[in-house]
Amino acid sequence: MPGNRGVVYDGPGKVEVRETNYPDFELKDGPGVNPANVGRKLPHAAILKAVATNICGSDQHMVRGRTTAPPGLILGHEITGEVVETGPDVEYIKTGDLVSVPFNISCGRCRNCKERKTGVCENVNPDRPGSAYGYVDMGGWVGGQAEYVLVPYADWNLLKFPDKDRAMEKILDLAMLSDIFPTGFHGCVTAGVKPGSSVYIAGAGPVGLAAAASAFLLGAAVVIVADLNKERLDQAHSFGCETINVTLGEPKDQIMHILREPEVDCAVDAVGFEARGHGNEAEVERPAAVLNTLMDVTRAGGALGIPGLYVTGDPGASDEAARQGSLSIRIGLGWAKSHSFTTGQCPVMRYNRQLMMAILHDRVQIAKAVNATPIPLDQAPRGYHEFDEGAARKYVLDPHGMLSKAS
Amino acid sequence: MPGNRGVVYDGPGKVEVRETNYPDFELKDGPGVNPANVGRKLPHAAILKAVATNICGSDQHMVRGRTTAPPGLILGHEITGEVVETGPDVEYIKTGDLVSVPFNISCGRCRNCKERKTGVCENVNPDRPGSAYGYVDMGGWVGGQAEYVLVPYADWNLLKFPDKDRAMEKILDLAMLSDIFPTGFHGCVTAGVKPGSSVYIAGAGPVGLAAAASAFLLGAAVVIVADLNKERLDQAHSFGCETINVTLGEPKDQIMHILREPEVDCAVDAVGFEARGHGNEAEVERPAAVLNTLMDVTRAGGALGIPGLYVTGDPGASDEAARQGSLSIRIGLGWAKSHSFTTGQCPVMRYNRQLMMAILHDRVQIAKAVNATPIPLDQAPRGYHEFDEGAARKYVLDPHGMLSKAS
Amino acid sequence: MPGNRGVVYDGPGKVEVRETNYPDFELKDGPGVNPANVGRKLPHAAILKAVATNICGSDQHMVRGRTTAPPGLILGHEITGEVVETGPDVEYIKTGDLVSVPFNISCGRCRNCKERKTGVCENVNPDRPGSAYGYVDMGGWVGGQAEYVLVPYADWNLLKFPDKDRAMEKILDLAMLSDIFPTGFHGCVTAGVKPGSSVYIAGAGPVGLAAAASAFLLGAAVVIVADLNKERLDQAHSFGCETINVTLGEPKDQIMHILREPEVDCAVDAVGFEARGHGNEAEVERPAAVLNTLMDVTRAGGALGIPGLYVTGDPGASDEAARQGSLSIRIGLGWAKSHSFTTGQCPVMRYNRQLMMAILHDRVQIAKAVNATPIPLDQAPRGYHEFDEGAARKYVLDPHGMLSKAS
Amino acid sequence: MPGNRGVVYDGPGKVEVRETNYPDFELKDGPGVNPANVGRKLPHAAILKAVATNICGSDQHMVRGRTTAPPGLILGHEITGEVVETGPDVEYIKTGDLVSVPFNISCGRCRNCKERKTGVCENVNPDRPGSAYGYVDMGGWVGGQAEYVLVPYADWNLLKFPDKDRAMEKILDLAMLSDIFPTGFHGCVTAGVKPGSSVYIAGAGPVGLAAAASAFLLGAAVVIVADLNKERLDQAHSFGCETINVTLGEPKDQIMHILREPEVDCAVDAVGFEARGHGNEAEVERPAAVLNTLMDVTRAGGALGIPGLYVTGDPGASDEAARQGSLSIRIGLGWAKSHSFTTGQCPVMRYNRQLMMAILHDRVQIAKAVNATPIPLDQAPRGYHEFDEGAARKYVLDPHGMLSKAS
Repeated sequence: MPGNRGVVYDGPGKVEVRETNYPDFELKDGPGVNPANVGRKLPHAAILKAVATNICGSDQHMVRGRTTAPPGLILGHEITGEVVETGPDVEYIKTGDLVSVPFNISCGRCRNCKERKTGVCENVNPDRPGSAYGYVDMGGWVGGQAEYVLVPYADWNLLKFPDKDRAMEKILDLAMLSDIFPTGFHGCVTAGVKPGSSVYIAGAGPVGLAAAASAFLLGAAVVIVADLNKERLDQAHSFGCETINVTLGEPKDQIMHILREPEVDCAVDAVGFEARGHGNEAEVERPAAVLNTLMDVTRAGGALGIPGLYVTGDPGASDEAARQGSLSIRIGLGWAKSHSFTTGQCPVMRYNRQLMMAILHDRVQIAKAVNATPIPLDQAPRGYHEFDEGAARKYVLDPHGMLSKAS
Repeated sequence: MPGNRGVVYDGPGKVEVRETNYPDFELKDGPGVNPANVGRKLPHAAILKAVATNICGSDQHMVRGRTTAPPGLILGHEITGEVVETGPDVEYIKTGDLVSVPFNISCGRCRNCKERKTGVCENVNPDRPGSAYGYVDMGGWVGGQAEYVLVPYADWNLLKFPDKDRAMEKILDLAMLSDIFPTGFHGCVTAGVKPGSSVYIAGAGPVGLAAAASAFLLGAAVVIVADLNKERLDQAHSFGCETINVTLGEPKDQIMHILREPEVDCAVDAVGFEARGHGNEAEVERPAAVLNTLMDVTRAGGALGIPGLYVTGDPGASDEAARQGSLSIRIGLGWAKSHSFTTGQCPVMRYNRQLMMAILHDRVQIAKAVNATPIPLDQAPRGYHEFDEGAARKYVLDPHGMLSKAS
Repeated sequence: MPGNRGVVYDGPGKVEVRETNYPDFELKDGPGVNPANVGRKLPHAAILKAVATNICGSDQHMVRGRTTAPPGLILGHEITGEVVETGPDVEYIKTGDLVSVPFNISCGRCRNCKERKTGVCENVNPDRPGSAYGYVDMGGWVGGQAEYVLVPYADWNLLKFPDKDRAMEKILDLAMLSDIFPTGFHGCVTAGVKPGSSVYIAGAGPVGLAAAASAFLLGAAVVIVADLNKERLDQAHSFGCETINVTLGEPKDQIMHILREPEVDCAVDAVGFEARGHGNEAEVERPAAVLNTLMDVTRAGGALGIPGLYVTGDPGASDEAARQGSLSIRIGLGWAKSHSFTTGQCPVMRYNRQLMMAILHDRVQIAKAVNATPIPLDQAPRGYHEFDEGAARKYVLDPHGMLSKAS
Repeated sequence: MPGNRGVVYDGPGKVEVRETNYPDFELKDGPGVNPANVGRKLPHAAILKAVATNICGSDQHMVRGRTTAPPGLILGHEITGEVVETGPDVEYIKTGDLVSVPFNISCGRCRNCKERKTGVCENVNPDRPGSAYGYVDMGGWVGGQAEYVLVPYADWNLLKFPDKDRAMEKILDLAMLSDIFPTGFHGCVTAGVKPGSSVYIAGAGPVGLAAAASAFLLGAAVVIVADLNKERLDQAHSFGCETINVTLGEPKDQIMHILREPEVDCAVDAVGFEARGHGNEAEVERPAAVLNTLMDVTRAGGALGIPGLYVTGDPGASDEAARQGSLSIRIGLGWAKSHSFTTGQCPVMRYNRQLMMAILHDRVQIAKAVNATPIPLDQAPRGYHEFDEGAARKYVLDPHGMLSKAS
């Protein structure tokens, strides 16, 4: 049995790579593991050698100390890997398969999974519906920023790439299927993006850029990406997006300049609860700023996709209501415009197969859009740091050097 | 040309029936008429003799002084009538037709109307998309709590009842097609109500009761109606609803008692911004209370239909944010449960024909469900008063005595 | 280990109850078992004691010799039972659970299952997508008209009734969840039935009656059922359907009489390929008669749901084309009316949970609608015979006397 | 008042350009005008100066003598023009507007129009729902292959281009909005084309090529176009399609070669009733060949979009059944694969605005895809002839020389 090494959260601002346990077909006790999950048998699981395992913006919430994540947690929920071992109940996934892992863990056996709502599976997290690898309050499944990781319900969860060699040629693109590409796509789909739509995307981080690439894939006529980070806006511009720097004033005025009308058809929130204000307030946290702006800039009858994370508890928030996840939202405006809103984790399995096909047939360059940047596993702390500083990059850890070899 | 009499808003708490102008095929200046609409020619309009014209809960917002409605406004947007004259552009609607008028005025010629979004028509209200008869900030179209009323774009807006005699036999039911029945139905449809659903409806006023009747029509397994008015809850109970008196504690606990699980599949907000708290807080205005409760009681992956009105400006609100239509909403909870939310005016034309068929074929008893109560036009002030006091009735004005004759 | 007895197909017109093997967690060779399925291990399966196991119209196709079903086949795919044993991979279904079995066997692990298309699962039938218990060319899964039956992928396939005692009170209704109720419902859903719809249902056999009950549950205004069997039409009439006896002339004329217009909104084919003609041709097999009539009687823009079975090979057909499953269809008429058509097995899992809720909360009386009639297992041959003679009954076998005890 | 010249059908194989009436706001008697439409007043109409007016494959059915079109009929239903006069009821469309005309004529005032089913409008064709300009059995509306043409219900029907100068730069692309682009798009939408789909399109004529361009706009991974005309296949190949020459054998085998699997996700019939066979039968008319092939090559659970025309009467068909529009269809195969089928005219207004936006923002090159080729009005007979010979071109008549000036 090989050893294992993983990225460990060690408290606010601290991330380290160190030795960790090789996965086992049982969920053992450990940091953040829900007591009701300890000892859970996993004959339906597969063990993966991680080929690509990405750093996600939602990991940053934990690392910044904006959650109650326990020290010692192995991070990582954006996993692409090669199957090295399967449990006795695994029937169709085979050793050697190259696969993408949806970040939401789901059982394939509860009502929600049967309804394709895998983002709120009822059987994997004893606390509440919905789960993910290496994440606080998500049941305690061990994270995948590591050399090896276990994936439960492997036949259900894993998406097998049909041709391993062809897949390795596009592995950086395919690595985006575990989370940000479907998540950005879900934001667009729930915002009603269709051929010919005008789309406003708040946030030019990886999810925002993935939403922008998704909007184009869905046929959008104009994709406008807003952020306050110039480097990230340049990245958005590089693949055909219009951009809005929110430090320069109200988005609505800038939209008017771009479209000759002040509103878009569809809007996506790719920021979430750590939003900041506009113009003079660009340095100030304004947790409802993005939601309120989206209502302002979306036409009557339009829809808002909200894949950006809002939390039920935010110990670092600036006021008591926000600490409970309550924000001051201009619902009256949304109502007057008959807006609809879709929130929540993207149910990755609803989209990942079709997005894989789009990648394999060169219909989208998602790795380029998000500026996917492979780095060795040992440099994870640098990746976390640079990403937090606002680098216009999506860091992809390369635990076995397979990415550098593939490119 | 006959004279005309209508219900006039004369300032907070004051409603009076008096002489008013007979409709003309031009929109004349008057209280609340948008300057850009003054002098608008209406060759596409029809003049109706009002057969039934209902008092609506949203009228009460104006009468209570919670809006900026100008004195002198003729009220009324729930109109059923007989066509007495048509403009030269009207081709298919004929004099003598018995018709239902959707409360949203729409043109049938703009992008939104062509997309069936008639609640946000772009051509009838110069201020913003969306309009209604006799309502503040809606363009200035004269209200229909009157003997006669004009309906623009008659071929588009009017729903003709196929058989006049048969229709008069069910005229009290058909009178609900102009607003509350489609509005309640829209709430259920956007909440995802399907055969077998469990549904929570906040509010047992006429829209809530119409939502409950709609939920049954859609095949819901269990319909739970919540309010703090016992008489209205009894009305809900009378046609098969389970009820929750929110003065007695948290709805979630009461749902547990009814369903043996604490959450429902679907939820409808039939209250809006004048919501009150629960339990001890039942007398205190808590404008986000209903929205926050709906997120609490709706299962992960569920949806919320929000036909209850939220406004962009509420001069009578208790805090500055609420005066701007901003409420403190537990969006973090909704996000964790992957909820979706649909707000806005019901686009009546999307549903009224099919609901008419359900009425004509005895598939729903909507008048009975909402306790429709005809009263003479002259007693409108009494109707407003009793409704505001919480009567479990839907008052239907009967300007020409045709309702009393029909029954 | 108990013994087992089951209903065996013994050649055209011959059905017998005799001793058979008790189920095993491996698919053994036997009549009609696909060689590629022989020896298949089934650790994910559960063994059920059959509480109710119905005779289906599609079984009759085999018994009449209209298929290539091999003698010795154990029949039966409409199963409701109690779990008596589970394989080692079954995690959530427990011994003692009372459950409904969807007639389509599906794995929960292939692309189609993940897309909720469980009627065309790719992993259970080596010949082609889609499978069923006890049916010709469906992979060879042993039928459930028996005392005991094995269900693979139990966690995925089985629908557990939440309360066993309450369920036993409605067990005859719940027994319809395995096939005909969802199948009729699927016909209506794909035909676009909504509140207020007018619906034409061809066929008053159990699926047609289930479609009629489903149409009402979906809020249909008028449900018209057509057949040439008077007793079955009376059954339809007993729960509020209008009826058309096709021996008396063209359905369109009779619809005119009922609706005062000659067309309906939605149509359902609950007959399939053994259709007969109308009027003078009512005794003659006209395999496309139902499809062509549906196009005739459905309004432009309407939709046709086609749960009635059409086959790829029919050795008993009257012409060569029909023997290959090719029928002479008036596609020009359908095209002129912009019809859409949905064919295929009902994916039961898409509907059974919600329909179960509707049953448990008394929103539908499906057993009464289809005239569900329990008979002992040993009387299965009589049931087959009477059903084939046109009895207006749905025969439900009662292998353990639990139905007679429950009622 | 200017004169007018138009393209006249003069009997099988004969097409001529000659003087014709300038449009009037009344529908006058003439070849093919339904008696019930004669004298119809059209105050809601606009008169257009035709800027681009295309020859359509469905015109060819008439010119080939495969219909009962009367000599003297002015042809043409694919019209783009400049408004030169509006009737008194036209409110939003103004003289000078540059507009696209949906080929389906619709009133915007009947049930079907209100439901967005403008392809089956109930008020414009006295014979049956659905209409078009210059077409047999469609009510008698005068065709638009002319210098000037009248469009009824102008506010409803016309799509205004937002910026006239910008529109003239892309006028050849925008000219495809009147029919073939939405028609091809509708075929794809109803076939379920989504990002990542594999799509089979039967027919590489203009509608097939437009469907292919639409499939890419919708994000399809692989688009396979089949025809027996090599030049047209080359055209398809020029913008990224895979191609199948059906004279070379069964499409399924060729799909296997392209995709490494024998089936696609989605299929579009862009051929219709004048289909021919495959392989050896490529010269023989086989009217159901395309439909049967689509069922063969589409995976279980997939859908078929059928914009290709099937008729209720075909006097030139080779057998009696086909003369009535009845074809021998392998419905058994489709049923076994749970296929769904959508037929009928594309309701152009459902899509044209969004596709206009896609054109204006350079998201699709539809003119290039279909090889749009402007020719003077006087050369219409040549255009008809060359198109009938199989030219891989979409001929666009240029009555006022505005296209040649624009390019």
